Amino acid sequence: MVTLKEIAEKCSVSITTVSNILNGKSNVSQETKERVLAVIKETGYRPNYMARGLRASKTNSVGIIIDDLTEFSSTGIIDGIMSYFEEHHYKAILENLRFYSKWGTKWYHNKGYEDAVQQAIDEFEAIKVDGIIYVAGHARCISCIPDNLNAPLVIAYAFTENPGISSVEFDDMQAACDMTTNLIKNGHKKIAVIAGTQKNIHTQRRLEGYKKAIKEQGLEDSRHLKYANWDRESGYEAAKELLADNECTAVFCFNDLMAAGVYDYLDEKGLVPGKDISVAGYDNRTISQYLKPALTTVEIPLVDIGRKAAELLLNQINNPDNFEPQQHFVQCGIIERKSVGKL
Amino acid sequence: MVTLKEIAEKCSVSITTVSNILNGKSNVSQETKERVLAVIKETGYRPNYMARGLRASKTNSVGIIIDDLTEFSSTGIIDGIMSYFEEHHYKAILENLRFYSKWGTKWYHNKGYEDAVQQAIDEFEAIKVDGIIYVAGHARCISCIPDNLNAPLVIAYAFTENPGISSVEFDDMQAACDMTTNLIKNGHKKIAVIAGTQKNIHTQRRLEGYKKAIKEQGLEDSRHLKYANWDRESGYEAAKELLADNECTAVFCFNDLMAAGVYDYLDEKGLVPGKDISVAGYDNRTISQYLKPALTTVEIPLVDIGRKAAELLLNQINNPDNFEPQQHFVQCGIIERKSVGKL
Repeated sequence: MVTLKEIAEKCSVSITTVSNILNGKSNVSQETKERVLAVIKETGYRPNYMARGLRASKTNSVGIIIDDLTEFSSTGIIDGIMSYFEEHHYKAILENLRFYSKWGTKWYHNKGYEDAVQQAIDEFEAIKVDGIIYVAGHARCISCIPDNLNAPLVIAYAFTENPGISSVEFDDMQAACDMTTNLIKNGHKKIAVIAGTQKNIHTQRRLEGYKKAIKEQGLEDSRHLKYANWDRESGYEAAKELLADNECTAVFCFNDLMAAGVYDYLDEKGLVPGKDISVAGYDNRTISQYLKPALTTVEIPLVDIGRKAAELLLNQINNPDNFEPQQHFVQCGIIERKSVGKL
Repeated sequence: MVTLKEIAEKCSVSITTVSNILNGKSNVSQETKERVLAVIKETGYRPNYMARGLRASKTNSVGIIIDDLTEFSSTGIIDGIMSYFEEHHYKAILENLRFYSKWGTKWYHNKGYEDAVQQAIDEFEAIKVDGIIYVAGHARCISCIPDNLNAPLVIAYAFTENPGISSVEFDDMQAACDMTTNLIKNGHKKIAVIAGTQKNIHTQRRLEGYKKAIKEQGLEDSRHLKYANWDRESGYEAAKELLADNECTAVFCFNDLMAAGVYDYLDEKGLVPGKDISVAGYDNRTISQYLKPALTTVEIPLVDIGRKAAELLLNQINNPDNFEPQQHFVQCGIIERKSVGKL
């Protein structure tokens, strides 16, 4: 394999110059840059990001720690992070904590949780990554990030009370407000709500958004509200209770899986979503396009969340003494399909 | 943070003994082992896997290289790999090549492909992982694995002609044979086939399985066969052509997305899958449970593929001079739901 030194000799420049070009520093003339990059391409030289940690103060590598790769939100966020870093010539490697797979939905009450996070941070610091992104599986306040970090860290899909750490989430409250407003503008005045589990932060934010829209549009709070378990079965059970009195013309489900449960209930009763009763979901999971009729739902901009987290981290890496930590919220979109009808 | 040395002193054993216990070597008495593990637990000591590469010949870490994390098969396989290694006290880290995201479905014709694989291997070797698993996004012969590897490598979801490298796939041919047999045993004699793209190895293996079943059951090859593009739209178009003459009573689709396209076509014609025409899919993607009626399909044992690949790799790591490379095929299951009716 060709070395940095050989490339430097071939181009009659110093090793530092070649290294600066590879690291994207701007203190090299355009002409030299093009000449060196041509030789690099010709020789097939590949910089070895991870091993740089053994010799350089900057490795152009970042670590991603993820609650659980199998969560529906994970791959989109990771793809966003990785695409951003690839464009900026950084290498991203990933550690998957497998919390949901190991401990079910209650894993964040497990004592092993904080140890596992700490260990993952230690591992990445040991190979001298330039920064770390922690990708959560659901919104919560993450309090186990140690204060004495050696590398900057950004949280995606959750937040922290540590004022020195940036986080990127989506605007859950506003998206729920938008979806509720959308239902009201379609003529629905009695809207049932199938919320998630009661203490969950997503549930709380979405309820807040629903209430905001109801108030803004001058309607009264629905008494047709059930907390459910985020799954299809609990959506079905909630629909059974909420829709029995035929008072509501629409149901806002706080995720797509529960909306699929509502479809099951309506199907059983011979009712058609979007015609007899309007149904709205949340998440824009793949299944929402395959339900019949296709489900109107909230799209969470997962890739954008990942890219924004990567941008904040890279900014902090490049300006360690001059960055402002921020709690950033990415806006969601409403995907209008066929499950909401006009009254 | 507590060190190995402090633990050794506390237990009055050598550092090597503590290290052997952590590495799962068996040359330590059960009593000593339990005593040391108790102290390790009490002190909260965490071995630092990645940094071990800087000092030890064995790091208890493995690298996973993946074609693209966003492929439907990826997370299941990775979860299997990671669960196996976690049980065996190995750390697994991941590099995502993002081939589909970057280059679409034609990426393996891209020149950058081999370079990217080589670089990922270099990176992992630089931090001295004990072994590498390459997780492909679809079945193919992978010929770009270099011969002079410093660490053992196993391929999952694809294969290689290199006789020294083990691979783990699923028995695609047999699963297609089983599904076809299942249709025939339900009384279907004219079975249309919506295959994938013609040169694709999954298509070829599934067609072979279909033909085997047809022959075994004494039927004639259907002339109702269309190659399609693996997506919903192409499934719809193929159904339109294949089902127009009302000759077939069943359609075997080589993936679930194309089966969803068949549902769209039947829906348009006022026909009910499983009642008017039977539909079988392949992959058991999440959507197959949400189609109405739920889709009968082939389940690919993704987690098992991952676990088997991990097992083969660990075996090779522990017995470098005494292992037999193998091409292993995991068996699939048939998930019977409501889309196949009895004639």
